[in-house]
Amino acid sequence: MRIRVVTPIITESFGPLILQEFTAAARSDVEVTNVFLDAGPASIESEYDDALAVPGILAKVRQAGEEGIDAIVINCMADPGLRAAREVVSIPVIGPCEASMHLAAMLGHKFSVLAVLDRLVPQFEDQATAYGVKDKLASVRSVEFPVLEMEEGRERLSALLVEQAVKAVQKDDAHVIILGCTGMMGLAHEVEEGLKKRGCPVPVVDPAIVALKTAEAQVDLGLSHSKKTYPYPPEKEIIGY
Amino acid sequence: MRIRVVTPIITESFGPLILQEFTAAARSDVEVTNVFLDAGPASIESEYDDALAVPGILAKVRQAGEEGIDAIVINCMADPGLRAAREVVSIPVIGPCEASMHLAAMLGHKFSVLAVLDRLVPQFEDQATAYGVKDKLASVRSVEFPVLEMEEGRERLSALLVEQAVKAVQKDDAHVIILGCTGMMGLAHEVEEGLKKRGCPVPVVDPAIVALKTAEAQVDLGLSHSKKTYPYPPEKEIIGY
Amino acid sequence: MRIRVVTPIITESFGPLILQEFTAAARSDVEVTNVFLDAGPASIESEYDDALAVPGILAKVRQAGEEGIDAIVINCMADPGLRAAREVVSIPVIGPCEASMHLAAMLGHKFSVLAVLDRLVPQFEDQATAYGVKDKLASVRSVEFPVLEMEEGRERLSALLVEQAVKAVQKDDAHVIILGCTGMMGLAHEVEEGLKKRGCPVPVVDPAIVALKTAEAQVDLGLSHSKKTYPYPPEKEIIGY
Amino acid sequence: MRIRVVTPIITESFGPLILQEFTAAARSDVEVTNVFLDAGPASIESEYDDALAVPGILAKVRQAGEEGIDAIVINCMADPGLRAAREVVSIPVIGPCEASMHLAAMLGHKFSVLAVLDRLVPQFEDQATAYGVKDKLASVRSVEFPVLEMEEGRERLSALLVEQAVKAVQKDDAHVIILGCTGMMGLAHEVEEGLKKRGCPVPVVDPAIVALKTAEAQVDLGLSHSKKTYPYPPEKEIIGY
Amino acid sequence: MRIRVVTPIITESFGPLILQEFTAAARSDVEVTNVFLDAGPASIESEYDDALAVPGILAKVRQAGEEGIDAIVINCMADPGLRAAREVVSIPVIGPCEASMHLAAMLGHKFSVLAVLDRLVPQFEDQATAYGVKDKLASVRSVEFPVLEMEEGRERLSALLVEQAVKAVQKDDAHVIILGCTGMMGLAHEVEEGLKKRGCPVPVVDPAIVALKTAEAQVDLGLSHSKKTYPYPPEKEIIGY
Amino acid sequence: MRIRVVTPIITESFGPLILQEFTAAARSDVEVTNVFLDAGPASIESEYDDALAVPGILAKVRQAGEEGIDAIVINCMADPGLRAAREVVSIPVIGPCEASMHLAAMLGHKFSVLAVLDRLVPQFEDQATAYGVKDKLASVRSVEFPVLEMEEGRERLSALLVEQAVKAVQKDDAHVIILGCTGMMGLAHEVEEGLKKRGCPVPVVDPAIVALKTAEAQVDLGLSHSKKTYPYPPEKEIIGY
Repeated sequence: MRIRVVTPIITESFGPLILQEFTAAARSDVEVTNVFLDAGPASIESEYDDALAVPGILAKVRQAGEEGIDAIVINCMADPGLRAAREVVSIPVIGPCEASMHLAAMLGHKFSVLAVLDRLVPQFEDQATAYGVKDKLASVRSVEFPVLEMEEGRERLSALLVEQAVKAVQKDDAHVIILGCTGMMGLAHEVEEGLKKRGCPVPVVDPAIVALKTAEAQVDLGLSHSKKTYPYPPEKEIIGY
Repeated sequence: MRIRVVTPIITESFGPLILQEFTAAARSDVEVTNVFLDAGPASIESEYDDALAVPGILAKVRQAGEEGIDAIVINCMADPGLRAAREVVSIPVIGPCEASMHLAAMLGHKFSVLAVLDRLVPQFEDQATAYGVKDKLASVRSVEFPVLEMEEGRERLSALLVEQAVKAVQKDDAHVIILGCTGMMGLAHEVEEGLKKRGCPVPVVDPAIVALKTAEAQVDLGLSHSKKTYPYPPEKEIIGY
Repeated sequence: MRIRVVTPIITESFGPLILQEFTAAARSDVEVTNVFLDAGPASIESEYDDALAVPGILAKVRQAGEEGIDAIVINCMADPGLRAAREVVSIPVIGPCEASMHLAAMLGHKFSVLAVLDRLVPQFEDQATAYGVKDKLASVRSVEFPVLEMEEGRERLSALLVEQAVKAVQKDDAHVIILGCTGMMGLAHEVEEGLKKRGCPVPVVDPAIVALKTAEAQVDLGLSHSKKTYPYPPEKEIIGY
Repeated sequence: MRIRVVTPIITESFGPLILQEFTAAARSDVEVTNVFLDAGPASIESEYDDALAVPGILAKVRQAGEEGIDAIVINCMADPGLRAAREVVSIPVIGPCEASMHLAAMLGHKFSVLAVLDRLVPQFEDQATAYGVKDKLASVRSVEFPVLEMEEGRERLSALLVEQAVKAVQKDDAHVIILGCTGMMGLAHEVEEGLKKRGCPVPVVDPAIVALKTAEAQVDLGLSHSKKTYPYPPEKEIIGY
Repeated sequence: MRIRVVTPIITESFGPLILQEFTAAARSDVEVTNVFLDAGPASIESEYDDALAVPGILAKVRQAGEEGIDAIVINCMADPGLRAAREVVSIPVIGPCEASMHLAAMLGHKFSVLAVLDRLVPQFEDQATAYGVKDKLASVRSVEFPVLEMEEGRERLSALLVEQAVKAVQKDDAHVIILGCTGMMGLAHEVEEGLKKRGCPVPVVDPAIVALKTAEAQVDLGLSHSKKTYPYPPEKEIIGY
Repeated sequence: MRIRVVTPIITESFGPLILQEFTAAARSDVEVTNVFLDAGPASIESEYDDALAVPGILAKVRQAGEEGIDAIVINCMADPGLRAAREVVSIPVIGPCEASMHLAAMLGHKFSVLAVLDRLVPQFEDQATAYGVKDKLASVRSVEFPVLEMEEGRERLSALLVEQAVKAVQKDDAHVIILGCTGMMGLAHEVEEGLKKRGCPVPVVDPAIVALKTAEAQVDLGLSHSKKTYPYPPEKEIIGY
């Protein structure tokens, strides 16, 4: 099985971490490849960044389809371009936010999301609503830690995540925690340990890896998104793309 | 007051109709100008079209902000790029779908939307949910009439709209009708008359004109979207835009 | 265009403020007149007050309809008699609470209402539910300031409003503030400035003026409430009115 | 125990039926008395009728409180003035619509209401929402039978009720039926029998009698509405009442 | 009228309290009998306890049906086996949680439940959702007081209930309190007094007694659960029961 | 990885089909074993059957935990005993209904469930509500085909499933279909083909296999249900188990 990760930014320095984590988590019969965008933003931290990433994502999604890839993971918690991408191809396209919210909904009574920035709180609430699991959302909390500082400051990031996760459990009645950025990959275990030490032993979900596992499962099941929801786009003149 | 209409397609032949209808509806002290996109699709009938229109929209929105325009109408019922556009500027940016759904919610018990294509039905249901008025949505019905045929076939389009509106009233208990495409502008009165003749006298909402009136009202009120919901995008490297 | 404000109390000393604020906010081609009730309470601060105001309101609404007025604003945040009034006439009848909640829902992620009295908190929650925008309501907070003290104590009222608005933004995640009494008219700008100084720059909505602008827009649009939702009352014997 | 029925109309010819049915249903230790309004409409079939009945209802409620009555039933499915009445007194005030919707919610998966007139359909949907049981409402259907014809045409009314109840069960998946007007009192058993014959054996709820039983139960329990929700109205000048 | 209380545990020492409280609350023409389980847990404080109580409950329910009993109360706030029990018989089967949540929904704006243990908080939230009254739930709070210590420690329990009830009123905006365990029977009045002294005069609901009164009312009304929702179980081979 | 299927009935003749389908679907490194109950019903088609299966399920779940099994699938769409089972062990326990509803929610706009019997329709609606995905449920339809006839009548069953699935797509706007009984395993592909031939090409979900894949994914992810939602049951006396 071949799974393509589309990391929807232009900051290629994240590449080694991404490949290492996805490869470690993938089943032995799964080949994971990662691509960055040709055009787009350095990171996605706003609706604006998100919007400018999408055309580049769609190009990579189409290309993956033409290469005969089995499934695609859009490697960002904003799930940028998820719906449009599903129109473009018929192979599974997985968004880490959608996949991890549905998994977390099964793991416990309510879940909280730890966002990178306070400005993204409304966006996660809107995503929970759009994905139909709003009633399972306990809260969204922020660590105020810009994406592009993540490569360097992992220790500080980890401590901030534990701190906010403890508050989510103790004040917001969260029973499950979702890391709110795929750039936090590799930290779930550490945060889970930190929570245990603080007397809050709850599952911590790494959304990028959940997306990978959801992709594997859908390919195994021979299932993909409904083309009744995501029909191919009608042919028409388009300038600039 | 100066209001800028951003018609988010490249099909400039719609220009005269757009200017005529908006100008006729605008208050005497309001100057309306319309721009099309430099890059983007011929029409918006899918999530894919929508996604490829947004970067072009954001360029026009930024430009309007720099010109000192008072408010912006994004002239498409998909409200493409609405959230990102509000991040880019602080003047009001109005989406016809959002504005007309909230108005329709005030006019009667429940409203129905008449979409151009069946494939857009889920999208309107999702928009009603995202805008917080899902409980006021009676149904979404389609006339199956591609956008680019609208310039020629207005009579047939009008008949189809009446037909579906009657069904919305009689079968879905709609008390208000929203035309589901800004390309239907100028037809609301005709459809309302058609409904009256068929024994279903309910208000018919022209979303483009509602967006204009909402823009006028917000400028008058000295109000615009909350920058707490739509903060300016963080500065960062972006390739290709 | 002629707009009739029905201020549903008997306390005529509010008259000059009302006329001044509405006239200042109205478009130049709009003539605003205000009437008080012949029978009813001195102020509306309970369901009981509300109920005893309604027959008087309906008389004034009917009279406005007979005078050929273009639209009516019921000048109270309880929207007393709104549904019955719409049955009585076919011209637009606007409730400040309904109109401002729908506008606030468009301006940001969630809004809070600042009520005059704690006892009115449930009522505003119920109104948000009835108007279909409950998911956009962040909270209702009270300034505990009786309506009839408002004429004298505007400075203290303004300070209390800023205080509660800051709490709404910081504790309840409100992104937009609605003043919860039409007697607070003229204070929105001041409260907005106060919020800015306190580091919470969010829009503050004056519901009375929003109602006026909504009335202007509906008349411009040639739209009014659906008579399918608000049919004329059946003729029958009625004693006492 | 003394229970006061306030029948909120001026049509006293309904008196004997009302007394007979309530007395037959009341426990042996319960004394039921019925009063009509001094001022108000002949029947309640609109928001307008409802509004004009409320001041008269509040007068009768206050009087019942002063007489030392134990509980009050407002004998109309619109529950007119229910909230204001609860402010006026501390003894239980029961609305047949609220009481029967909550009972029906316990009896089966979903319930339908059979309204007298099509124009009341939105009102019942709004009441289910306001009472917090919207998810248990299967549908509202109408028999189109004006209230004031009920005294004469009970046989035809009964047939119409069975007809619509069958549709509610077969088309709308109703598992419980609520008669939508207290003027239908005495017909529940007949309609239940009719449903059985038509292969739809489901419970049929008589809302007036349910209100009586709810009143009895609350008095037995020593419970009444929360004065935190329904505090006494503040003292103030009121003209005309 | 004969009402059977099924107390779904094996701890028979609760027997005298149960009989005394139910008998004191029952109408004079009602005979209450209580049975414990032949097999099952000592108390119900988990989904596990609940599951192991249900077969024993169903045996007692069937037996009550065969004895010609008029209605059954399952005497536990988890309402264990409620749906299955209603399949087994056609006489009313009342769950204290369902009955008291619907009553509390009528008494005030929102209600809180005081659970015995923190681990039961999600369960009460799920029950409010399942019974269709989630929007009326203010909060669930716990007194952390194991069921089997209740017989001895009633004074301490009462103090803890007042403490949590005060928090529910002051912090969670509860307007009505429901005692969250039928083992708390007899304490409602005391807790109500305690709340009054602390400046929070709101109704306190004893769920066991509410269940009894609901059973009495349904028998009086000649109503029971819909067999369309709860049809008799199909005949089939079953091992072990 | 070792996965234990607990088929919660006593009808062991289903054994070969179950093993064959699960083994064919499992990854090569996964060993699947199946157990039936020692005590319980022949099939699960009511709340009553469900209740009598649960103690037997919990015994098998505890045993699987003691054997060092990695994850458990409860092989029935009623998800009987799911919550109690998760209290008993800390390894993942997967319910096919919960897992397939969350997957279907990701695959398309809305999904429908095809139940075996009409009497189970409310139960599936309640499950969608309990799992937090009610807004994604288009409808529940029944094939009226008793579970114990499934072994013989697979061809007729398959035809009935296609027939109801077509109606779900065409009348209820379902974009995804879930087979409503794990006894339908092996038929998803056939039904999907049937739908394609009838012009309704949408994904068909086999819930048993989805449960298996969800179990595999959770074990890979090192995740299981939150013990904050599902704490171990308190020790106490229990008679009969």
